Amino acid sequence: MNALPRRTDQDPSDAGRTEAYAELARRFGNRLQSGSAVREQHAHTTTWLRSEWPDAVAYPRSAEEVSEIVAVCAKHRVPIIPFGAGTSLEGHVNAPARGLSVDFSGMNRVLAVNADDADCVVEPGLTRVELNESLRDTGLFFPIDPGANASLGGMASTRASGTNSVQYGTMRDNVLSLKAVLPDGSVVSTGSRARKSSAGYDLTRLFIGAEGTLGLITELTLKLRGVPEAIAAASCRFPAVSNACEAVIEAIQLGIPMARIELLDSLTVKAVNSYSGLSLPESPMLLLEFHGSDAGVAEQSKAAGEIFADHGGSGFDWTVKQEERSRLWQARHDAYWAALQLRPGARGLSTDACVPISRLAECVAAAQAKASELGFIAPVLGHVGDGNFHVLLLVDTGSARELEATEHYVSWLADLAISNGGTCTGEHGIGQGKIEFLERELGPATAIMADIKKAIDPLNIMNPGKIVRLG
Amino acid sequence: MNALPRRTDQDPSDAGRTEAYAELARRFGNRLQSGSAVREQHAHTTTWLRSEWPDAVAYPRSAEEVSEIVAVCAKHRVPIIPFGAGTSLEGHVNAPARGLSVDFSGMNRVLAVNADDADCVVEPGLTRVELNESLRDTGLFFPIDPGANASLGGMASTRASGTNSVQYGTMRDNVLSLKAVLPDGSVVSTGSRARKSSAGYDLTRLFIGAEGTLGLITELTLKLRGVPEAIAAASCRFPAVSNACEAVIEAIQLGIPMARIELLDSLTVKAVNSYSGLSLPESPMLLLEFHGSDAGVAEQSKAAGEIFADHGGSGFDWTVKQEERSRLWQARHDAYWAALQLRPGARGLSTDACVPISRLAECVAAAQAKASELGFIAPVLGHVGDGNFHVLLLVDTGSARELEATEHYVSWLADLAISNGGTCTGEHGIGQGKIEFLERELGPATAIMADIKKAIDPLNIMNPGKIVRLG
Repeated sequence: MNALPRRTDQDPSDAGRTEAYAELARRFGNRLQSGSAVREQHAHTTTWLRSEWPDAVAYPRSAEEVSEIVAVCAKHRVPIIPFGAGTSLEGHVNAPARGLSVDFSGMNRVLAVNADDADCVVEPGLTRVELNESLRDTGLFFPIDPGANASLGGMASTRASGTNSVQYGTMRDNVLSLKAVLPDGSVVSTGSRARKSSAGYDLTRLFIGAEGTLGLITELTLKLRGVPEAIAAASCRFPAVSNACEAVIEAIQLGIPMARIELLDSLTVKAVNSYSGLSLPESPMLLLEFHGSDAGVAEQSKAAGEIFADHGGSGFDWTVKQEERSRLWQARHDAYWAALQLRPGARGLSTDACVPISRLAECVAAAQAKASELGFIAPVLGHVGDGNFHVLLLVDTGSARELEATEHYVSWLADLAISNGGTCTGEHGIGQGKIEFLERELGPATAIMADIKKAIDPLNIMNPGKIVRLG
Repeated sequence: MNALPRRTDQDPSDAGRTEAYAELARRFGNRLQSGSAVREQHAHTTTWLRSEWPDAVAYPRSAEEVSEIVAVCAKHRVPIIPFGAGTSLEGHVNAPARGLSVDFSGMNRVLAVNADDADCVVEPGLTRVELNESLRDTGLFFPIDPGANASLGGMASTRASGTNSVQYGTMRDNVLSLKAVLPDGSVVSTGSRARKSSAGYDLTRLFIGAEGTLGLITELTLKLRGVPEAIAAASCRFPAVSNACEAVIEAIQLGIPMARIELLDSLTVKAVNSYSGLSLPESPMLLLEFHGSDAGVAEQSKAAGEIFADHGGSGFDWTVKQEERSRLWQARHDAYWAALQLRPGARGLSTDACVPISRLAECVAAAQAKASELGFIAPVLGHVGDGNFHVLLLVDTGSARELEATEHYVSWLADLAISNGGTCTGEHGIGQGKIEFLERELGPATAIMADIKKAIDPLNIMNPGKIVRLG
């Protein structure tokens, strides 16, 4: 029998933690790890934020095990940090109050595929690529693509989206319901497999984007889509970002369905030329995808081409052939690695903002100018249909001056987005990195968030230090 | 100067209420009404639920006035019941603890239309028809159509949807952000005009569907769509509901975009024949709409027709001409009034449920059989693409036996939906009528809803007695 743990109403004591980890080690054996390499790996961040290691990492294999882990942690008031694939960008997996990282990689099963209903039930550690591989024979796919091969639980927790949300929506729109373990270890189900529901508060949407601060997601019911009969890819270059944005606005207003609309600024195109030995004209570029029937995507591609030409677009090219689609989109696929080569040895720190599309061109221009003023090499990529854009700052993270300039820039960009009717983050989330900007953006609403956090997690053990600041 | 109001930690006393109404009458003059007719009108319900009148009705003209009203009510602990167009079906506007109805009809302005961003900002009392009229010259429209000319604030509060959510989503998907007056009278903004955001808890979605129990919505930023170049209507009859459902499942899986997919059961078709002097074959019928380009809707209509034929569909007809579209859809437009004529003098009590589409045919058959077993005349209408269906019970509300049978039926239908992986309400909401079913459907999740309610509205003055039961 285990010794009865010491209880305290104070902050978690080291003794309490030691008890908790001992209890978990007895229960989970080598699925509780506390070696340095493992701890470091679970706190890696890809921002300017300092890594903050958890004390230990647990590897549950079922919702029941997650529930047991949370119950033990609650008893000893040990902070819990959920860990999916570790691709988040704002310090979501850091452990500022130490505690236990819960790694979901062992919970990666597809529990059910309901082809007639175009939905599936999965565990949160499954990655989006794994899911789509397992759907290969069904004629269905899961559309959300944030770039990285993130875990679906992590994608839900950060309300991820990516390149094709202009057609398919974000994680917010593609999770029908979920199960979560609450801070007391109990399990809650937020809904059913119904396509829509008016049954009470939208707890599904509350957990999506909560970054693990309200509970741990243990199951997701996801909406799937039919694999389109045809996919067309297109590319077009423009004299300026503003022309590209105006062209997209008109195409959207005319109801041309576009599945992806990616903007590369001329610096990104220059990087790609150098990286891949291409000779693309070094001007802003739009890359598009159309999903539909054979006739539909042909009609849409041509219609888009005409609109783009009216806005100064040139070199418009489109194709439905897989190989040529890859060629047209090569610049986008290579963009990140190519951009890093603009300053070998530097780290790429990506920050995001999202504004109404009518403000996008001006905001991108301002973002480029400000980066240049601060001496940054900083290519810009945008999901134009959503008004969401990323600035990749190439930073020597060994330089205090550059890190300071980075912090300044990121804060300035958040203010720019907010003052243009937008948000400080379109898809990266708040984590630790944007708490201050969230407060600037939403003011009193953050107090409501804190009230909700306190109501659901009164001990503040669920991913503390993320999203909300508790008074 | 007003006398200082009497404060109490008990339930609101009549004295406190009297003070509150006197204070509001001084401030709002004849925009505070307490005549019987006005009170009765603000508590009308279209269910079997008894009407419960508020003490008085206030007619604010601005968010500031709403804030003042709420502050006075909070001071005296007077319940507040928001009132839009009064079209809700589950007793949402009833006043079981009496209190003040806040009628938003005087707040019906369009505050901004941002055509380039395809969004607009409106006050909550504006109806969807008023909004679409004001958008007529912009090439844009607001797609959600729950049938009734509901107010947009009410539609947001009940998470309304309707016939074309299969293509355009529900209110959940079409509100970018909102402003609300909280139970203490303060004002909160939940977001920006950005198309997507990962900025903290999704408070927008929390208020959507909260039925006024967390605060009063005073402003909505809505997503608009481009008016489609072409609209095609189609109709097709089937030997059985199951054939119609299978046909729709296949069409969805093949990615045929359908904007509306309405199912009429044979009883509804019979009613329409009799009401409108038509001679439609009395079998289940699908009515569809396709929105897109001229070529697109033609291609989609033809593809749907072929799939439907494979599933026993006959009499498939489609058209893009406005007049003929009306003719094809006449059965749907007349359905409600025609159905009422199946039993002259009876009231039509509509209940809704939503199940995975693979379970729809079986659930509709069971719903028809059960209604028949209980002696009801009860036509069925469905939004097939969502698995959402309505049973219209024709009830002599003067008969205690029939009312009892109605209650029994509604409860049985909720259980049927829940046991088939669905929800007790797809679009009508919980109100007073479905609190018990919500608890059956979501169990422990309703405790979380109660925790949120208590955290945001500790005095329980916001539409008490709806959605959550407080312990």
